[in-house]
Amino acid sequence: MTAPDRLRATYDLVCAPGEEARAKALDIAREQTVEMPEGTPPGDVEARVLGVIERLDTLPDGRSRVVISYDVALVDGAAPQLLNLLFGNISMKRGIRLVGLDLPEPVLRRFGGPRFGIEGVRERCGAPDGPLLCAVIKPVGLAPAELAVMAERFARAGAHLVKDDHSLADQASAPFRERTARCAAAVARANDQTGGRTVYLPNVSGTVDGLRGRLELAREVGCGGVLVNAIPQGLDAVRLAGEIGLIALSHPTMAGAFFGRDHGIAPEVLLGDVFRLVGSDGVIYPNPEGRFPHPLWTVAMGEAINRRLREPLGGLRPAFAAPGGGVEATRVPEWLARWGPDTLFLVGGSLYAQGDYEAATRRLLEAMRTSYTRMVAQTRA
Amino acid sequence: MTAPDRLRATYDLVCAPGEEARAKALDIAREQTVEMPEGTPPGDVEARVLGVIERLDTLPDGRSRVVISYDVALVDGAAPQLLNLLFGNISMKRGIRLVGLDLPEPVLRRFGGPRFGIEGVRERCGAPDGPLLCAVIKPVGLAPAELAVMAERFARAGAHLVKDDHSLADQASAPFRERTARCAAAVARANDQTGGRTVYLPNVSGTVDGLRGRLELAREVGCGGVLVNAIPQGLDAVRLAGEIGLIALSHPTMAGAFFGRDHGIAPEVLLGDVFRLVGSDGVIYPNPEGRFPHPLWTVAMGEAINRRLREPLGGLRPAFAAPGGGVEATRVPEWLARWGPDTLFLVGGSLYAQGDYEAATRRLLEAMRTSYTRMVAQTRA
Repeated sequence: MTAPDRLRATYDLVCAPGEEARAKALDIAREQTVEMPEGTPPGDVEARVLGVIERLDTLPDGRSRVVISYDVALVDGAAPQLLNLLFGNISMKRGIRLVGLDLPEPVLRRFGGPRFGIEGVRERCGAPDGPLLCAVIKPVGLAPAELAVMAERFARAGAHLVKDDHSLADQASAPFRERTARCAAAVARANDQTGGRTVYLPNVSGTVDGLRGRLELAREVGCGGVLVNAIPQGLDAVRLAGEIGLIALSHPTMAGAFFGRDHGIAPEVLLGDVFRLVGSDGVIYPNPEGRFPHPLWTVAMGEAINRRLREPLGGLRPAFAAPGGGVEATRVPEWLARWGPDTLFLVGGSLYAQGDYEAATRRLLEAMRTSYTRMVAQTRA
Repeated sequence: MTAPDRLRATYDLVCAPGEEARAKALDIAREQTVEMPEGTPPGDVEARVLGVIERLDTLPDGRSRVVISYDVALVDGAAPQLLNLLFGNISMKRGIRLVGLDLPEPVLRRFGGPRFGIEGVRERCGAPDGPLLCAVIKPVGLAPAELAVMAERFARAGAHLVKDDHSLADQASAPFRERTARCAAAVARANDQTGGRTVYLPNVSGTVDGLRGRLELAREVGCGGVLVNAIPQGLDAVRLAGEIGLIALSHPTMAGAFFGRDHGIAPEVLLGDVFRLVGSDGVIYPNPEGRFPHPLWTVAMGEAINRRLREPLGGLRPAFAAPGGGVEATRVPEWLARWGPDTLFLVGGSLYAQGDYEAATRRLLEAMRTSYTRMVAQTRA
């Protein structure tokens, strides 16, 4: 057992010819902490902060697996230093893959996780149970008025959430301020008509010092949440969204850079553990058999990400798994049976491809309700 | 020739069995822009925003190289959307490596590049020519008073810059505010004594909404610049530092995730073109034969990064190449001959390893001056 004030990171190591696993592990422990030759740090600081090798095993495939523990005092409560500690300078080395993370209570408390979580999102959408549908307004290049029509139609059809495409930022074709105000108003109009509670999530991608202003604007015009391109924007943006009272739906754009086979961060650790820790209420990832035909995006990977988002983790709320990226509307019931009801399905292109996407959304929601009712009945039987 | 209002990105493609290069290229062009099935976007928007394949070649090693041009209207002037456009969703596919970037005038103007550049940094340090030395205070775990002693000694020895270790964030052992104030005061004291102009650069890693405050504090207490962990903090932090009147020295922590052999972004594009575009006055990267024994970190790579930082690029100022990561003090003259005088050498561990690091710094600076004088004489001869 590790002391409760240590954070444990598990790395899989692929050694280059002539490289020895223990030496590689020791190099990581030093590089990520004192980052100085042995014995050069003054006083007892090396003894206090140097990473500790808790165990080192050889895996059946010949790789080595090392567990390194870090003093929680190295983490400062903001995402950039946590990421830097876990995979900062070693990103520029090779054959190192972060595959596991044990977050001690002080780190869990300091970051706090989702502000809303599954229950909070359900409450805001007025959907106490069953799977949720998030529709997408797109593409970039359309004007705010055109996007607002889409948002209104999706809301009228009853989509639980409507999000901006992740490429809608602050381009001249649909500036953030105007787009957000118009789409929020359109969704509010639809909600008034239907009595529904569709939540519109604008994409708050943009400058770092303008972020708070964009979030506050989103809240003021009545958006219940926002879409955050967490990697390019910086992961701390997710926390800020929650603090301002907005559901944070995190998009994985650019995250794939970390998903190397031999080097990087395992998707379930980055999109599961880390994205949840920093406050994501929902995390988007590529559903298998969609537009991302990478061997990574399997059912097992979806299950691994879902588990990390949902399982008990200190006092942190569970977050919605949000599979997307080419989910076929007709196959949603099948995926629902697999992923379970605490899933937020992102469906975009497949609704547009049906022409009348408002009608397509109604049909999809109906199919989801039917499948969910059957699931519940089967569970009770 | 491409129209001047298009941004051209060059990707090297490794096709999986059964995958065809043109289809892969078309998939990128669609995924990064309209991200919807062909024909589904309304009106003429697909014609306006879909990426265009400008050329597609087969390379001698069997890879394909595609140049895709994007309408500059897709970029909004902030780093997150630029990164998302270049390597956002496709990061979650495979066999795609961004190896080149042609930035049109409107994009160069909008981002603006370094606020100080080589000349501005030289002016602030009072070093009109020759190589610069940046010393590093470390490790994390020391108290502000201990770090301040180090900063003062490096400044007294005449280091042009003294930077925080990139792992010094806002930990309780040395909170940002106290560390920055104390180290800045220590460096100012040394400067008063010596008549020098050493610049201290605190690491501004931390929350997104606290960033402006940290930068303003750094400026108020007299720091001439800051260290930015550009990837975890979000690249737009670099621009903000410049806007506030601070030299931005960008650290490559986590950037290595992008440097896959078959997938990712080539280091010279990310650390060279992109880091310069967003405003880095200096860019740190691993010097060959140091602590980063990856086959990536060769002399050719150093030259490629240096060239992108220094070469003419619209009206953008050139930026300092800042090789570091285990540079041996004794070998600096050799590297100086290779990299040229517009180089900012980062030397940390090797000075500490000599025990009296103040004396070691004086010796190194003397060796750098001697080598530089010889270089100049040889050039004139």
